[in-house]
Amino acid sequence: SLDRAQIETLIDTPVITPVIADAITNAYVAASAGKINLPPVGHIIFPDLSADCHIKYGHQIGTDHFVIKIATGFPLNGVQNLPTGNGMMLVLSAKTGAVEALLHDEMRLTDIRTGIGGAIASRALCADQPRHLLVLGTGPQAACQISAHKQLLPSIENISLWGRDSAKAASLAESLSPLHDIKLPEIDMVDDLPACVNGADIIVTATGATAPIIRSDWVRGGTHITAVGADAPGKQELDTELVARADRLIVDSHSQTTDHGEISHAYRAGLIGDEAITELGTVLAGKAAGRTDAHHITIADLTGIAAQDLAIAKAVLDAHHNMPTTG
Amino acid sequence: SLDRAQIETLIDTPVITPVIADAITNAYVAASAGKINLPPVGHIIFPDLSADCHIKYGHQIGTDHFVIKIATGFPLNGVQNLPTGNGMMLVLSAKTGAVEALLHDEMRLTDIRTGIGGAIASRALCADQPRHLLVLGTGPQAACQISAHKQLLPSIENISLWGRDSAKAASLAESLSPLHDIKLPEIDMVDDLPACVNGADIIVTATGATAPIIRSDWVRGGTHITAVGADAPGKQELDTELVARADRLIVDSHSQTTDHGEISHAYRAGLIGDEAITELGTVLAGKAAGRTDAHHITIADLTGIAAQDLAIAKAVLDAHHNMPTTG
Repeated sequence: SLDRAQIETLIDTPVITPVIADAITNAYVAASAGKINLPPVGHIIFPDLSADCHIKYGHQIGTDHFVIKIATGFPLNGVQNLPTGNGMMLVLSAKTGAVEALLHDEMRLTDIRTGIGGAIASRALCADQPRHLLVLGTGPQAACQISAHKQLLPSIENISLWGRDSAKAASLAESLSPLHDIKLPEIDMVDDLPACVNGADIIVTATGATAPIIRSDWVRGGTHITAVGADAPGKQELDTELVARADRLIVDSHSQTTDHGEISHAYRAGLIGDEAITELGTVLAGKAAGRTDAHHITIADLTGIAAQDLAIAKAVLDAHHNMPTTG
Repeated sequence: SLDRAQIETLIDTPVITPVIADAITNAYVAASAGKINLPPVGHIIFPDLSADCHIKYGHQIGTDHFVIKIATGFPLNGVQNLPTGNGMMLVLSAKTGAVEALLHDEMRLTDIRTGIGGAIASRALCADQPRHLLVLGTGPQAACQISAHKQLLPSIENISLWGRDSAKAASLAESLSPLHDIKLPEIDMVDDLPACVNGADIIVTATGATAPIIRSDWVRGGTHITAVGADAPGKQELDTELVARADRLIVDSHSQTTDHGEISHAYRAGLIGDEAITELGTVLAGKAAGRTDAHHITIADLTGIAAQDLAIAKAVLDAHHNMPTTG
C-alpha cells in the first residue's frame, strides 16, 4: 500500500515521465487494437451535492495484473478547502484475484496520466518544432499538462496560461516552477485570449467549462488543440464549428468521446460522422494518419481511458520495486 | 485500514451477529423500499481461468458513507491451495468523496453477510420452532450458514451436512466447532440425502452446483429452503419443478434473481411470473406476507445485494470505533 506522498516520490522526477509516456503510448495502442478488456465505467451519483464517483477498470489481455480505479468528484468540497477530486487505484492479480497493491493517490495518478496522455497526443499531432504552448485552465490538470508538454516536447519555448479566473491562473503559474525538477520557462499570463490562440502552436484546454471558450475564427491553420476538459455530459470548451472545421479529429476512445467528449456536440449535431474520427492508438501504431499537412488544424479529444490507469499503476509499482534500498 | 485478522477479531463473537443481523435486516427493508442507490454490478472476466471480478457498490440515501466492494472468484486457485474468493471493501464519504476506510477482508465479510442474510430469510419464513437444519455445501459459505442459523434460530437442535464431495463435508464439519464461540450441536454427515431432505425443517443450499441437486418429490410440505449457491448465470441447486411448486418465493432482489438466481430457470421457462415473486425486504417490513400456512413450502433465493455490504461494513467500523482501548 502506497500513499500519495510515497507515490509522488516515485513519479515526480523527470526520469520517470518518459517511462510512463512509453507505457501510456503502448496502452493507447493496445486499447485501439482491442487488446484491453475495458468494461463500461461504473457510476454512482450524489445528486444533492452534484457529486459523483466513477469506477474505471480493465485488463490488458495476457498480462498478470488488472486495475480498478475509484475516482470521486465533489465540486462543493472547494468551499471547505478540500480537494474536489479524490480516489485510489487497486492493483489485483489477473492470475489469482488477490489484491496486490493499493495506490491511495488521491487523484494524483489520474492527473498525471491525463497530463501525459495530452502531451502524447500533442506530440503525435502538432506541426514540427512547436514553440508556443497555450494552456487554458487553473487546476491541477493545467499544471500537469504544462509539465508533461514541456518534458515530451523540448522545443517549447513560450508557455501562456489563461484562466476563467485570472487570479487563480496567476497563482497556478507562480506555484509551478518550484513544484517540478524540470526547468520551466517563465509562464506568461494571457490578457488577449483571441490573439494568443492565434499565435499558439499547441493549445491545451483543461477547464471545467460548460460552454465554448475558444472560437473557431481565432484559430489559424497549423494549430494543434488537445482538449481534455470535457469528460462528462454537458461540458464543452471549443466552438462546435471549430470541431466541424478541423482537418483531423483524433480521440482516445470512439465510444466515450462521441458520447460525452468535446466532439460529442458536433457529432450529435450531425456535423461530423464516424468516418471523421480516428482513435489515437491507431495513429500511434502507425496504422492511421495523424497530421498530413503543416497547415491543417488537428484536434485531440481525450476523455481518459482505464488503459492509462493500468499503465501508470504498473509504472509506479515497477518504480517502487526497482527503488534502491537505503543503507 | 483493517486486514482480515483485525476484522475477524471484531466480528467473530456471538455478540456482534445479532447487531449485524439487525443492520442487514434494515438494509433489505431499505433496498426493497427503493432507499438505496444500487447501480448495476460491475463485472470483468478472465475467460482463460473461468475467473471473474465483481464490483458491487451502493449508497443508502441520506447516510454519510457509501461502500464499494471488490470480489474476485478464481476457481482454479484451489489447485494451488489458494482461496478461490478474495477481495475487499472500500468505505467512502458520501459528503466529500474521500476514502475513509479499507476493509481488506479477503471475502470474509461477504461470506458472513451472506450467511446472516440466509439466516434472516430462514427465520422470517420457516415454520415455528424449527429443529432440524440441513445444509448442502462444503465451502466457507456452508460454515457461515450453519453458524448464522444456529445463532439466529436457537430452537435448532440437529444439524446435518451434505457435500457433493463427502470427504470435504466431513472435514468442514470437524473444523466448525472450534472456530466459533457458540456451542454447536454435533453435525451429522448425510448418507441418504432424499430422506434427510424429507425430514428437515430448514434446508440451506450453498453449493456451486450447475445442475439441480434437490428433487421436488423429496420435499415435504412445511419445509423452508434458503438457496444461496446460484449467484451467477448457469448455476442451479433446486429442481425447476420445486421452484414452480413452492407456495411462496421470496428473493433479495427481483432483478438479480430473475436474471441469474435460483428462480431464474423457472422464471425463464415461464413456470413462475413476476406476481409470484416477493422481495425479502418487503416481507421483513411487514408489507407483504411471508409464510401463511404451516404446511407451505417456502423458498428464499438470495443472490447477494450491495445493501448487505453497506450494512456489514458499517457494523465493522462501528465495532472498531467502539472497541475499548487497552490499558
